[in-house]
Amino acid sequence: MNYVSFTTPDGAATWGVALDGRVHDLGPTGANVAGTLKDLVADGRFGTLAEEQVRDAPAFDEADVALLPPITEPGKILCIGVNYVSHQQETGRTNQKAPTVFIRFADSQMGHNAPALMPASTTQYDYEGEMALVIAKDAYRVSADDAWGYVAGYAAYNDFSVRDWQLAATQWTPGKNFPGTGAFGPYLVPAADLGSVDELKLETRVNGEVRQSASVADLYFSIPQIIEYLTAWTKLSAGDVVVTGTPGGVGLFMEPKGFLSPGDVVEVEITRLGTLTNTVALDA
Amino acid sequence: MNYVSFTTPDGAATWGVALDGRVHDLGPTGANVAGTLKDLVADGRFGTLAEEQVRDAPAFDEADVALLPPITEPGKILCIGVNYVSHQQETGRTNQKAPTVFIRFADSQMGHNAPALMPASTTQYDYEGEMALVIAKDAYRVSADDAWGYVAGYAAYNDFSVRDWQLAATQWTPGKNFPGTGAFGPYLVPAADLGSVDELKLETRVNGEVRQSASVADLYFSIPQIIEYLTAWTKLSAGDVVVTGTPGGVGLFMEPKGFLSPGDVVEVEITRLGTLTNTVALDA
Repeated sequence: MNYVSFTTPDGAATWGVALDGRVHDLGPTGANVAGTLKDLVADGRFGTLAEEQVRDAPAFDEADVALLPPITEPGKILCIGVNYVSHQQETGRTNQKAPTVFIRFADSQMGHNAPALMPASTTQYDYEGEMALVIAKDAYRVSADDAWGYVAGYAAYNDFSVRDWQLAATQWTPGKNFPGTGAFGPYLVPAADLGSVDELKLETRVNGEVRQSASVADLYFSIPQIIEYLTAWTKLSAGDVVVTGTPGGVGLFMEPKGFLSPGDVVEVEITRLGTLTNTVALDA
Repeated sequence: MNYVSFTTPDGAATWGVALDGRVHDLGPTGANVAGTLKDLVADGRFGTLAEEQVRDAPAFDEADVALLPPITEPGKILCIGVNYVSHQQETGRTNQKAPTVFIRFADSQMGHNAPALMPASTTQYDYEGEMALVIAKDAYRVSADDAWGYVAGYAAYNDFSVRDWQLAATQWTPGKNFPGTGAFGPYLVPAADLGSVDELKLETRVNGEVRQSASVADLYFSIPQIIEYLTAWTKLSAGDVVVTGTPGGVGLFMEPKGFLSPGDVVEVEITRLGTLTNTVALDA
């Protein structure tokens, strides 16, 4: 089932489920099953809604609502860098001994179809198609063996990166935190709906041209390993987001460089998670 | 005036002002001037309280309360790395073109006299004495010329660092985010009370031995430059914390290494900001 957060045509923030071209409103302006999608996750009810309950809720045409990041206010967003062998090779960062972890603030995020904001101060605006997961419940010192039980669901993510600001110093924080650069969605899909994520394929396209293509099975540090590693030093909670890494094919390592320009349409498609589309717009 | 956040002997969280060995309760369990110190900052009233108003509020002996980080729930904590020439030299990271910025989560922080938690998984637990500042109001795309107007106040900070986890990959996130490692306090002192911060001296001591000694005037990127740089890519708000960097003398670069062990008492003293004391305890 494709869970979404969105604003109604009246501009109110709510959440629901997208089904057959309609978005059913299960949030405060509709059936009010929970205040936010994060609340639903925290209550342990994410993924338990019956299709009949969804269809009974008032609905909008999908074209009439604006999608938000599925989790609009995650407490923590942890991103894993250089976590596909194909990207390790293009960056020269092979032989990773531990996951590379950086942080995004929640206010850098936007949803499907929102503009990807390109700062006026960059000439190196880049895409990174990734798969994100959302944490189901309090998670601290979780072993890899137990880790799957802490994943609520999955979504596509585009970790738009401002390379000149990312690489101006050793730490990547600035280039990963401009407003309108963390694209998340369109949907959050319950883990229970998916079976093994190793079956999922990820593809990133720029104006229709395939730039990244990989299987989630190619993650260098697996999802259980990532969760064990992260929860060794920080406490995760329901609604926290982990962005698992990007495969080879980013613009920075193309010859010539494949950086983005205003008007470019960037899509990240993942099997069963839908296609996340954002058009680059100059943030003047 | 020395503003504090603290828990009362009954365990309730509140805030107030420390004066002559007493802590006057201006928060919800006392005079209730504002809900939290962050609220007071956001309302533009931080630093405006008269001494008479403070003395009229109910008070505890300072020894009977537990100090918290002055801002208990900052929205963002941004730390500047390698920002004193003396530390650039010992790290070999001279010629910084842009500030190095990493992020701490709020739940990694603790107050004065709280234990500095040393994870069982490290053999390289280190101190970093620093000066922190707290943002006064919404700040985005602020020029260095205007930056001083966005600083509410200053405090001492000890950016305890788990070096083996910090340096296991290129990004320092894990080694800077274990619980009980971001010591902040004891006091938050209004900028208006201080005059020029260039007059302030910082000293870090381990079991009484001086390990770091510097003038805040030696910051490589100045406070206005830091605020201009940070607000070029992220929106800061009242109560956000900026930790400005540590001078030379950290344990990592001593010969032999000067790492910490359980029982070590670490003090960061800054002129007019008081002495921040934390004793290292194993986090088993």
